[in-house]
Amino acid sequence: MGPHPAVAAIRLAVRRVLHDILTEQTSAQRPVPTAAAAGSPAPFVPAAAHPPHERPPSPLVLVACSGGADSMALASALAFEAPRLGIRAGGVTVDHGLQTGSDQRAAEVVQRLRELGLDPVESTAVTVGREGGPEAAARDARYAALDAAARRHGAAAVLLGHTRDDQAETVLLGLARGSGIRSLSGMAAVSGAGGRYRRPFLHLDRQTARKACMAQSLPVWDDPHNADPAYTRSRLRHEGLPALEKALGKGVVEALARTAQLSRDDADALDTWARQAEAAVRDATGLLECAKLYALPPAVRRRILRRAAIEAGAPAGSLFARHIEEVDRLITGWRGQGAINLPGRVVAQRQGGRLVIRQG
Amino acid sequence: MGPHPAVAAIRLAVRRVLHDILTEQTSAQRPVPTAAAAGSPAPFVPAAAHPPHERPPSPLVLVACSGGADSMALASALAFEAPRLGIRAGGVTVDHGLQTGSDQRAAEVVQRLRELGLDPVESTAVTVGREGGPEAAARDARYAALDAAARRHGAAAVLLGHTRDDQAETVLLGLARGSGIRSLSGMAAVSGAGGRYRRPFLHLDRQTARKACMAQSLPVWDDPHNADPAYTRSRLRHEGLPALEKALGKGVVEALARTAQLSRDDADALDTWARQAEAAVRDATGLLECAKLYALPPAVRRRILRRAAIEAGAPAGSLFARHIEEVDRLITGWRGQGAINLPGRVVAQRQGGRLVIRQG
Repeated sequence: MGPHPAVAAIRLAVRRVLHDILTEQTSAQRPVPTAAAAGSPAPFVPAAAHPPHERPPSPLVLVACSGGADSMALASALAFEAPRLGIRAGGVTVDHGLQTGSDQRAAEVVQRLRELGLDPVESTAVTVGREGGPEAAARDARYAALDAAARRHGAAAVLLGHTRDDQAETVLLGLARGSGIRSLSGMAAVSGAGGRYRRPFLHLDRQTARKACMAQSLPVWDDPHNADPAYTRSRLRHEGLPALEKALGKGVVEALARTAQLSRDDADALDTWARQAEAAVRDATGLLECAKLYALPPAVRRRILRRAAIEAGAPAGSLFARHIEEVDRLITGWRGQGAINLPGRVVAQRQGGRLVIRQG
Repeated sequence: MGPHPAVAAIRLAVRRVLHDILTEQTSAQRPVPTAAAAGSPAPFVPAAAHPPHERPPSPLVLVACSGGADSMALASALAFEAPRLGIRAGGVTVDHGLQTGSDQRAAEVVQRLRELGLDPVESTAVTVGREGGPEAAARDARYAALDAAARRHGAAAVLLGHTRDDQAETVLLGLARGSGIRSLSGMAAVSGAGGRYRRPFLHLDRQTARKACMAQSLPVWDDPHNADPAYTRSRLRHEGLPALEKALGKGVVEALARTAQLSRDDADALDTWARQAEAAVRDATGLLECAKLYALPPAVRRRILRRAAIEAGAPAGSLFARHIEEVDRLITGWRGQGAINLPGRVVAQRQGGRLVIRQG
């Protein structure tokens, strides 16, 4: 008899991502093959069995684990699949220090990860700042700690337990910003420097992760922050999304996740277009020519204007759609209006048929 | 003392749209000027004052009015602004025949529109079918009736009272389909054959329309369908959106409306790209070349595939993202898979490096 369907689902999701990682490792190492491996990109086997000068060492994949159902399910699937593919599996838990006893909680998670057979396993404590609000600050601190852990251990990848439900919430959070399709594209399956972060569960629902933990008798910890209405994401999860599902039907989470993927592809394509078009609309001195900008589709033109503003020093996070619209009116609704002030002391003005965007 | 701010706001919104209509009429008529008007595109004046052989007749703009606050506000603003611009203002109300006494209700709306000074005013009765669900069927019947009325009266435009709140709801309805950014782009400010339909209130909130009615002591009628939880839009309005606002903050409606505009521009640009790229990926016999399709960004490739499927006879409304993804795998994940069945008995298959999409 095979494993519980939920367990089979989480393992399959992890196996696919591990395969991708192995494929990328193999092709990255092929240009400088060792004597034994030359011409035959053999599957990876544990490093211990082969001296490093003959075979590349077996890669290490870490799981980022809070002790919650999603990341415990992920850890269990990694522990099961990695050895079968000649991959070493380790784990990291981040102690955000936001609740009393969080250090003890982290120690428990370390213990559970070790019991799953992961090695190395570590807990890393961070200090959460305040910039961008409590959720953004915690996220920034967490990723900095995971980056550091990955570097310290020479990990090929760090797996994150975000599910389709998390993705749906992220899309709605992006929607609330109203800043266009890039912010609707949610989280990427692969992200970070060199594709370090992987999200194997992005197409899996939260319920499956929870069921997989139950089926494997894994104790899970429910972060009280996840139910705290002081947090936007928590309000969205417990009130916003259920109300939306009630109004629109049960497929909403799936529809939001699909919207993320489609929006990401669309945003990528338009960014490519804008990058290519940008060179063609600059004059010999590198200034943007208004007449040529005018001839572009608005979606492409506004992307070029946004890129130019950021290049001039405007912080991307403070540059909103309405800023770009105002700059765009220098092109499409020119009536001799004055300079437009943008965040980061950047100024945009039209001068003799050219658009000049620079720090004032 | 000027009018109430809400009244000023609705009038300004209508004035802008009427200006657009006049500008378009003038430029459309300039190629064949009459003797008197040649060389001097004079502002329009009422037809009665000038025989038709000297000046073009003053254009007629109709308002579609249900008797609800949004469209009553729109009718009042049209009645105020149109004569000042030499435009004739009329009104149409559609009797959907879905409630007992709807004919009497329509007669009342006609009466109110006449009291505002609109002329011509008419009520037009429709029979609502069942296709696509009750809301879609009512909408189809309504637009068919408005089209007919516009043709009958030779109207230059029909104004619709959709507000920013309606737009936000439409974006969420599109989001629930999960079929990409085109379905997130909501309603256009200008739509229909020849740009017949105009939505002056698309950037105005529902509350402003309601206040404008109160300030002008206009009686309004609240359609019980708008509060009927059997209707998706009504559930969204009364439960879904308020819950989302509670979770995400008060700016959600505005953010959704901005998302609509940005998505529309993005979708337009990508459609343009796909149209241009399509010619380049077809071989001499008109078949799609898989290698050339493969080289395109996924967002552009999928649009070409979608267009090809529709051209082959697949009904656009039944063609979902998952269908196109499956066809796309014939290009990006080719492992000798068989023909893909699409709606409308359309079949897609790969044959000798070509993609063949046709009705089976």
